[in-house]
Amino acid sequence: MTDQPCDPQTALLADLRSGLPASAVVDDPEVVASYAHDMASFCAAGRAAVVVLPRTVEEVQHVMRTATAHRVPVVPQGARSGLSGAANAVEGCVVVSLVKMDRIVEIDPVERIAVVEPGVINAVLSRAVAEHGLNYPPDPSSWEMCTIGGNIGTGSGGLCCVKYGVTAEYVLGLDVVLADGRLLRTGRRTAKGVAGYDLTRLFVGSEGSLGIVVGAVLALRPAPAPQLVLAAEFGTTAAACGAVRAIMAGGHTPSLLELMDRTTVRAVNAHARMGLPESTAALLLCAFDTPEPAADLAAVAALCRAAGASEVVPAETAAESELLLAARRLSLVALEAVKGTTMIDDVCVPRSRLAELLEGVERIAEKHELTIGVCAHAGDGNTHPTVCFDATDEDESRRARASFDEIMALGLALGGTITGEHGVGLLKKEWLARELGETGLEVQRALKATLDPLGILNPGKVL
Amino acid sequence: MTDQPCDPQTALLADLRSGLPASAVVDDPEVVASYAHDMASFCAAGRAAVVVLPRTVEEVQHVMRTATAHRVPVVPQGARSGLSGAANAVEGCVVVSLVKMDRIVEIDPVERIAVVEPGVINAVLSRAVAEHGLNYPPDPSSWEMCTIGGNIGTGSGGLCCVKYGVTAEYVLGLDVVLADGRLLRTGRRTAKGVAGYDLTRLFVGSEGSLGIVVGAVLALRPAPAPQLVLAAEFGTTAAACGAVRAIMAGGHTPSLLELMDRTTVRAVNAHARMGLPESTAALLLCAFDTPEPAADLAAVAALCRAAGASEVVPAETAAESELLLAARRLSLVALEAVKGTTMIDDVCVPRSRLAELLEGVERIAEKHELTIGVCAHAGDGNTHPTVCFDATDEDESRRARASFDEIMALGLALGGTITGEHGVGLLKKEWLARELGETGLEVQRALKATLDPLGILNPGKVL
Repeated sequence: MTDQPCDPQTALLADLRSGLPASAVVDDPEVVASYAHDMASFCAAGRAAVVVLPRTVEEVQHVMRTATAHRVPVVPQGARSGLSGAANAVEGCVVVSLVKMDRIVEIDPVERIAVVEPGVINAVLSRAVAEHGLNYPPDPSSWEMCTIGGNIGTGSGGLCCVKYGVTAEYVLGLDVVLADGRLLRTGRRTAKGVAGYDLTRLFVGSEGSLGIVVGAVLALRPAPAPQLVLAAEFGTTAAACGAVRAIMAGGHTPSLLELMDRTTVRAVNAHARMGLPESTAALLLCAFDTPEPAADLAAVAALCRAAGASEVVPAETAAESELLLAARRLSLVALEAVKGTTMIDDVCVPRSRLAELLEGVERIAEKHELTIGVCAHAGDGNTHPTVCFDATDEDESRRARASFDEIMALGLALGGTITGEHGVGLLKKEWLARELGETGLEVQRALKATLDPLGILNPGKVL
Repeated sequence: MTDQPCDPQTALLADLRSGLPASAVVDDPEVVASYAHDMASFCAAGRAAVVVLPRTVEEVQHVMRTATAHRVPVVPQGARSGLSGAANAVEGCVVVSLVKMDRIVEIDPVERIAVVEPGVINAVLSRAVAEHGLNYPPDPSSWEMCTIGGNIGTGSGGLCCVKYGVTAEYVLGLDVVLADGRLLRTGRRTAKGVAGYDLTRLFVGSEGSLGIVVGAVLALRPAPAPQLVLAAEFGTTAAACGAVRAIMAGGHTPSLLELMDRTTVRAVNAHARMGLPESTAALLLCAFDTPEPAADLAAVAALCRAAGASEVVPAETAAESELLLAARRLSLVALEAVKGTTMIDDVCVPRSRLAELLEGVERIAEKHELTIGVCAHAGDGNTHPTVCFDATDEDESRRARASFDEIMALGLALGGTITGEHGVGLLKKEWLARELGETGLEVQRALKATLDPLGILNPGKVL
């Protein structure tokens, strides 16, 4: 550390620069301001003191030692594509952007693992492992821009989860820089291992509040067969949810089981002229990547018809399948275009309660005179009710926030969780206590205090 | 609490009895002594003060409140089939046997979950879910006797892990009684959820040292097709391990990929006249439960031949498959019969280092003039080198322990872990520090101190 000048901000910058290349420390106010937010609505952000862009583990350790010495908060960031405000700057903080640590260190087809730095883009990794005949399943909608470090921080999901699970299930081991700059190695490179407590999973989904992930060993799978998609139209959401129940109770393992409600279907058509059937109340997309997907789709088609589908259209080619998936992937962008701004909820309920959730969202939309489109990872019971509103209209914004909260309350009442895959961040931290209960919250706070005694890691987030 | 008499033991018993049925508190010394050990060799056990057999969550809470008040250690136990001494009594402790909490509370085919108490036997659960067309994959060798609570405590594996993963991957949520008697509910009933830190996984594999699991929400899968097994004989272990590498690098997903070395094959033949080929150095068993297992087995047979297999025999019927699996399942019992006692190691290495581990074990066996049979979950790199020895022979026992330790050292040197699925317990706790490193151990100790500040939960185990 240098001799400490009077101004704490100057002293902080000097100490940061003492262990980082000049280009890695950015204090131009305009540039710093551009790192203030992730993509969540309704989440406040403070003014960061500085943005650092480390390229090595040692540099991250230097940042954390400096932050500890100065008692300054640190906010780690990936691509800032998150939807909960977890990456938002807090007043006077050091923003640590991990995007320059973007090396794929290793891909091993025998061990079926990849070793990566946190700034690797999800899609870049997916394409790299595909060249080895492998697959990294987690596929959040933002996969073309989001980073693996961000995926680990939030515990991201995606379309594939109904068969392949979420990010957490693919993290075998982590390198984590702790609040005081120590480097912790968790987990393993082997397929199995139970030596000591599972620290890996403690950091996955912790939104940078327990340590900064600087490396990860990820599990890979053999590349699956191309998936074939079926689209089924239903006159009511209840009927569509009945089909979801029948498919899952029937022992099927679709690689995707998605639902788009009428609002979403219309928004997608308006946005991209996809020609989806606007008269249906709910469109179900179901896919299989099994050796004989057509046979599986035929079985599911029969279940959909029995559940009341008005139309069932199996794709016959991979291209047709891709078109249907593209429509689904456009949902959030299309809903955003409806009113200019969206609040995307992420309530996950037991599959059997899906219909009650969707009907409840309809009631909430009517009550608040709002447009709320729902797309859902229906096979997981994970819904994204998306409130469309005009952010310049104060009253509409207030109603949007109120409806958002009512949807979370409904999710909890149905035995669900306030977040299936987007995380808590700032957006839902008031709600976390309601889900965890008193003892849960006490234990979570105690763990946070143990790993971050000064409370400098992403303070004010999650808890 | 009652007025405290002079004798601490009498006071403890009186306070325990104040909140438990008379039959749930056992202090007959002979009966208490029968709860001293799990199935690990070379692990000391203390004399418990008392054994309690609660039937409800509230009774477990009463036990923990009492233990906290008396500052008495508590050792939770399932079926005591563990192999690391984790369930061994410590001096003056309260043994909490969870075997009476054995209700399957719920099986839900739509949510694909089971809600169970900790004392449910693994095989009982497996059969119960099979009646609903479902499968609970984790299948440790002791599955006919071990409990789900014990499986969760140790993070158990089994034969199916190469395709279906370990116990941890099937635990969605837990009810845990903490050291001070508070009840903590972790996780969820939904397919996905990232609300707050992942406390569920922190308790899985913690061997009762952080809390007592009193309930679990388990994930289930649709029942797979019956598996078809292939046996391949190899003249060297290196060739067999080459086949394992080729199978995994080839993108196959066997439901089982096991290896038995010559010592194990001979032991099984001697024990049960199975007629396995004693002239081979290693016997590989590979199975598929895919829609067309015969096609998958044919591909694997070709890989085995290319890797140098002297004989490849695909089973043609489910009955033939079962016979081969029965031989594998007999391995540990058969090896135990060789000399009366065994020490079963549990080293897991990267798949590509499997041959080096097996060859190293051979050298260690020669050096110490011992019989060490190896059966391995080869597809996971998880090996069980099993040292056969005469426990009444002091010198042989000393050599057995020395060889056991050398095998762990070799596993670590090859980038592996000291335990793939059996846990640390007493047997390996000196070794854990070598695997975790200083920072890892410090963090694990800090977490233990946070959740168990008085150090009363299974003290002296794991860390």
